[in-house]
Amino acid sequence: MDERRVQSIDTGTLEDLAVGATVLGTGGGGDPYLGKLMARQAIEQHGPVRLVEPEELPTDGLVLPVAMMGAPTVLVEKIPNGAELEKVVRAVENRLGREAAALMSVEAGGINSTIPIVAAAELGLPLLDADGMGRAFPEIPQCSMSVRGISATPMALSDEKGNLELLETISNDWTERLSRTATVAMGGSSIIALYPMTVEEAASAVIPRTMSRAVEIGWTIRAARSRGDNALEALLDLTSGQLLFRGKVADVLRRTVEGFARGTATLEGTDKDSGSTLELEFQNEHLVAMREGEPVASVPDLLTVLDAEGHIPVTTEGISYGQRVEVIGMPCAPIWREPGALEIVGPGYFGYPFEYSPLEEVRT
Amino acid sequence: MDERRVQSIDTGTLEDLAVGATVLGTGGGGDPYLGKLMARQAIEQHGPVRLVEPEELPTDGLVLPVAMMGAPTVLVEKIPNGAELEKVVRAVENRLGREAAALMSVEAGGINSTIPIVAAAELGLPLLDADGMGRAFPEIPQCSMSVRGISATPMALSDEKGNLELLETISNDWTERLSRTATVAMGGSSIIALYPMTVEEAASAVIPRTMSRAVEIGWTIRAARSRGDNALEALLDLTSGQLLFRGKVADVLRRTVEGFARGTATLEGTDKDSGSTLELEFQNEHLVAMREGEPVASVPDLLTVLDAEGHIPVTTEGISYGQRVEVIGMPCAPIWREPGALEIVGPGYFGYPFEYSPLEEVRT
Repeated sequence: MDERRVQSIDTGTLEDLAVGATVLGTGGGGDPYLGKLMARQAIEQHGPVRLVEPEELPTDGLVLPVAMMGAPTVLVEKIPNGAELEKVVRAVENRLGREAAALMSVEAGGINSTIPIVAAAELGLPLLDADGMGRAFPEIPQCSMSVRGISATPMALSDEKGNLELLETISNDWTERLSRTATVAMGGSSIIALYPMTVEEAASAVIPRTMSRAVEIGWTIRAARSRGDNALEALLDLTSGQLLFRGKVADVLRRTVEGFARGTATLEGTDKDSGSTLELEFQNEHLVAMREGEPVASVPDLLTVLDAEGHIPVTTEGISYGQRVEVIGMPCAPIWREPGALEIVGPGYFGYPFEYSPLEEVRT
Repeated sequence: MDERRVQSIDTGTLEDLAVGATVLGTGGGGDPYLGKLMARQAIEQHGPVRLVEPEELPTDGLVLPVAMMGAPTVLVEKIPNGAELEKVVRAVENRLGREAAALMSVEAGGINSTIPIVAAAELGLPLLDADGMGRAFPEIPQCSMSVRGISATPMALSDEKGNLELLETISNDWTERLSRTATVAMGGSSIIALYPMTVEEAASAVIPRTMSRAVEIGWTIRAARSRGDNALEALLDLTSGQLLFRGKVADVLRRTVEGFARGTATLEGTDKDSGSTLELEFQNEHLVAMREGEPVASVPDLLTVLDAEGHIPVTTEGISYGQRVEVIGMPCAPIWREPGALEIVGPGYFGYPFEYSPLEEVRT
């Protein structure tokens, strides 16, 4: 058994997981503090959540990812409750006539790494040690399960008021369109259960061990800091990442449109990058880093902003004027570099007029 | 048994029903010709559709209204098919774990009087001789079942592409909001099944014998014309209606917003109304008739435009510049004059700054 594997999420592991998931969340996924609080409360009440591998589950068992959908700027003002999570899980279970064998995280990102922990604790289910992105992306089809041909529906959506929608669509693009408008109509965020699949399907369609990886990232940062080592270097070593820029936040433009938090953060270089500027564009997640108008890194590779003080990740809504930050790039999960996958997660998909270049090949 | 009662809808009855439903549809409900063609084809293929009274069905039987939702301006370009109708009926049946004993029309109006006939013929079910409005209204809660406390959900929506949504909401206002945005996202129109209820509930919550009434109206106009009598007078006699205005269409303003066909038709008086103007404002259906700035009739009473040549009803999208028309008013079903009901169907609900006055009390 891989020594990097984490067996369960307790309140201790949760601390590291929340930090690591925010690194992998590339600025998106909502407030990690809020998500952590919810998960901690659920674990204290119901006990630790067991992390499982596909091999530990029956091959025809139902794996059901759960998440929050919507703009992170809205999520922080609409705290979800356990009833919504149970409601969406039961709605998909009832539609399929079978019970879930395990829940799963659809993406690594602040709140969407911890929401499945809340649901798993409350429903007494294990959590598959995996996710569907190995990072966070803004749209539903931007998911490894979609690349492998799995339908996102039957999908259930619920809001904090008690409304429920069940979607069955002809494509994951239609699922994105219909669930996005429903989420906007529900007030900007919703709780969702989607991409129901068998354990056998999951084994070849998910990004494996993402939860363990998040814990390891969080642990690595914490351990380095407590040793007085350079946590940034330890993080870059672990993730094969690169430091792209050091700077100070000179400007942040934000707007919530069509259910997304979009915007641009402009950084003025400090230290080695003095005299230079970097623009970070985001749609829930950081999409592209442009230096003097030239892309230095882009989706699907991971772009994460760290606070320069403690090398702690900052979400897009946490970026503020004057903050000293470090921008790092990390290579994405291998599936995203497949040609068919790049079409739905590369810079061109988000409207940028340049081709994707793997992070390792771009000079910084 | 009431002699006015029609026992079944065959291709002959259908002709009268289509005309009568367009009179009751007060300008809304979509193209009656298209709906009639669809229903005729279904009747020719599967046989006449039996009209039933609640007393003929088991008291715990499931009554399920079906309809099209969306702007009539869009409906005419998106012809629904039988598969969508079956899909929404089955979705609600599956959710409730029981089969429908009868289908129903949710509103009297061109296409929404004939869509349930198509569904009933194709699924081999009887049709309850009733509707939920006794006319047409633009929004889901504007329904006698809603006034009587019945939930519009579980409600299913489907589009012509094959997408399906199932809604379960906390109120009929939320159902309106979520199904309207879904319909807009589906391209502007959808096929829906909603307000599932028992026969016992239906007996006290529906507007009785609307289908028979529509046939009778159509028959009355046709019979008068074939006798060479004045069809307008026969129609006003039958419906206790009033001739409000004779004129020529001088201007029509139309726009499709938020899934509704909204607009204003300005009429210049002819004959007895020479020198006067009438403005008709509509939102799918005619809402208000204003003469020199003063309301002469308004929702919930029925406002219908007839072509002056043949006294044939014209839908809002059929009104065109230069057309000679007659505007008639007819009193609404008694339920709409209850205080609680007026709040959701009166002029105030649609943003007009005046109180409802029953048609019979307004001088014209």
